[in-house]
Amino acid sequence: MPTYRRIVLASRPAPEQPPRHDNFRLETLEVPTPSNGQVLVRNLWLSLDPYMRGRMGEGPSYAAPQALNETMVGGTAGEVVASKHPGFAVGDQVVGQLGWQEYGLSDGSRLSKVDTRHVPLSAYLGAVGMPGVTAWHGLRRIIEPKDGETVVVSAASGAVGSVVGQLAKQSGCRAIGIAGGRDKCRYVVEDLGFDACIDYKAQDVVKALQEAAPKGVDGYFENVGGEILNAVLGQMNAFGRIALCGLIASYNSQPVPIRNPSWFLVRRLKLQGFIVSEHMEDWPPALKELGTLVATGKLKYRESVADGLDAAPEAFFGLLAGRNFGKQLVKLG
Amino acid sequence: MPTYRRIVLASRPAPEQPPRHDNFRLETLEVPTPSNGQVLVRNLWLSLDPYMRGRMGEGPSYAAPQALNETMVGGTAGEVVASKHPGFAVGDQVVGQLGWQEYGLSDGSRLSKVDTRHVPLSAYLGAVGMPGVTAWHGLRRIIEPKDGETVVVSAASGAVGSVVGQLAKQSGCRAIGIAGGRDKCRYVVEDLGFDACIDYKAQDVVKALQEAAPKGVDGYFENVGGEILNAVLGQMNAFGRIALCGLIASYNSQPVPIRNPSWFLVRRLKLQGFIVSEHMEDWPPALKELGTLVATGKLKYRESVADGLDAAPEAFFGLLAGRNFGKQLVKLG
Repeated sequence: MPTYRRIVLASRPAPEQPPRHDNFRLETLEVPTPSNGQVLVRNLWLSLDPYMRGRMGEGPSYAAPQALNETMVGGTAGEVVASKHPGFAVGDQVVGQLGWQEYGLSDGSRLSKVDTRHVPLSAYLGAVGMPGVTAWHGLRRIIEPKDGETVVVSAASGAVGSVVGQLAKQSGCRAIGIAGGRDKCRYVVEDLGFDACIDYKAQDVVKALQEAAPKGVDGYFENVGGEILNAVLGQMNAFGRIALCGLIASYNSQPVPIRNPSWFLVRRLKLQGFIVSEHMEDWPPALKELGTLVATGKLKYRESVADGLDAAPEAFFGLLAGRNFGKQLVKLG
Repeated sequence: MPTYRRIVLASRPAPEQPPRHDNFRLETLEVPTPSNGQVLVRNLWLSLDPYMRGRMGEGPSYAAPQALNETMVGGTAGEVVASKHPGFAVGDQVVGQLGWQEYGLSDGSRLSKVDTRHVPLSAYLGAVGMPGVTAWHGLRRIIEPKDGETVVVSAASGAVGSVVGQLAKQSGCRAIGIAGGRDKCRYVVEDLGFDACIDYKAQDVVKALQEAAPKGVDGYFENVGGEILNAVLGQMNAFGRIALCGLIASYNSQPVPIRNPSWFLVRRLKLQGFIVSEHMEDWPPALKELGTLVATGKLKYRESVADGLDAAPEAFFGLLAGRNFGKQLVKLG
């Protein structure tokens, strides 16, 4: 019998501590046969995303915790290899939520066929997938940037941040990224077309922001948190909007406080936390726009690819530590 | 010549320090005569409000700082005693922004005639004035409470907080106040009709909130800040809304950080700072509703009255320290 491999959650990381290899376990199972109404998918790409750190814990999060000894959750892109479902045929390219495994069964309910003629399959896990829609929602629905405003985004070279800045530029804004390291900053400005990028590892973020955003900051898309959030809050203009998408700086450590809540009052700021999966009405228009932009070369992205399922844990640790450069994927095919 | 008294800002308090008597100076001047287009008003009531602390400083605030050696800013209610303005006649009852003085000249631009047949003149500085509209805007436009939700308000016995809770009750919400001291809490529940009130001086706010709001908190109207903000944030439900109106706990001291920004993300909270004077479109509908509620006895309020202009500084210090009980006024008449 043919076999496949999967990774299950073996144990939970300690709260405010990084996950470790022994939290995961690699298993080998027999490839299943689809029953009536089911599809068997061979996963070609696995998406690694910061939210997975939250699912690994037991603490209150916005989603139920990942069950122990079950396949780690995650977005996947692959190809239908057997189908007893009228909506799917062998050879269909599909994206779904089949988790950290090489093959998966689906009843079709969270599986979508995608068109890979103009958009590569892996992009449906990035710029034309959940990260892209996340950028779209936070920018369009919360920040609502106006022509001539200044928008800042942290983790600017990442799957979400790179889309935020490029969409902001298309709305006539000044787009400023924050990223870690010279290479990422150069990429954000030279390849993605941001107006400026601040290297938080090498620069004083407040001083650099004052130079890069001389008229202050109107919109901030936050992926990181920690001291970067405090630095940007201090530069916000009156009526600024902050879309709070992630706080990756604190996922493995103590929370970093917001030092001066009076910023919100004195400058009449709006801060809004959000989870893109709760705004399903935005997915169709966002995916349509993002797909067109990628297909026509107007939206660029970059991928960090780990090779093979057994590389997934280490790649995930790197993602949480900012060692990835662009959308973190695992190539399973 | 008849004279009147005024209080000017003599010097600015040190940042993050309480104001002192020597920041103010009492002066005696001759009562002026109105020129063409002007009205002379005898102020009967002076409103004391927390925002004045911000105006006394030089730091960045939402309004220009109060000028040194000029009459302290402030809302006033009084009677027209001489008029060369076609819109005002001797005997008219008016509210305006004539500041800390017994008489004031106005060109009519920020002066409104009010009807005192069913609503007392002083109420136009409280429940049917700026504090009332502040409550109305924060509750209706930011918190937008739904029937059955739980709304918490700090400084619940004060000019703003008392209106917030009563309006929330009228929207079918569970209203919970936070106030300092047993008398204020008893008043909030027994006289104003809140469902519960937490005495932050005597109770563990987190524990008391968990008891008073067993289903969690959906809307929070913040007047105080400091540790109370942290305590309430920890009890917010998913999609909770926080209207940030004031942070009086920090006006005279170091800012108190928001300890755990992940609350905003995990629970998808919205925090919005606001200044009621920037939402003039809300004033007519709000004042109409609040005036009707006061006139029909459905909206209750309480006043702390200091007697005479020279009592104003001490009353203002008391307001900043929470020693007032209800709307703080100075009776000038």
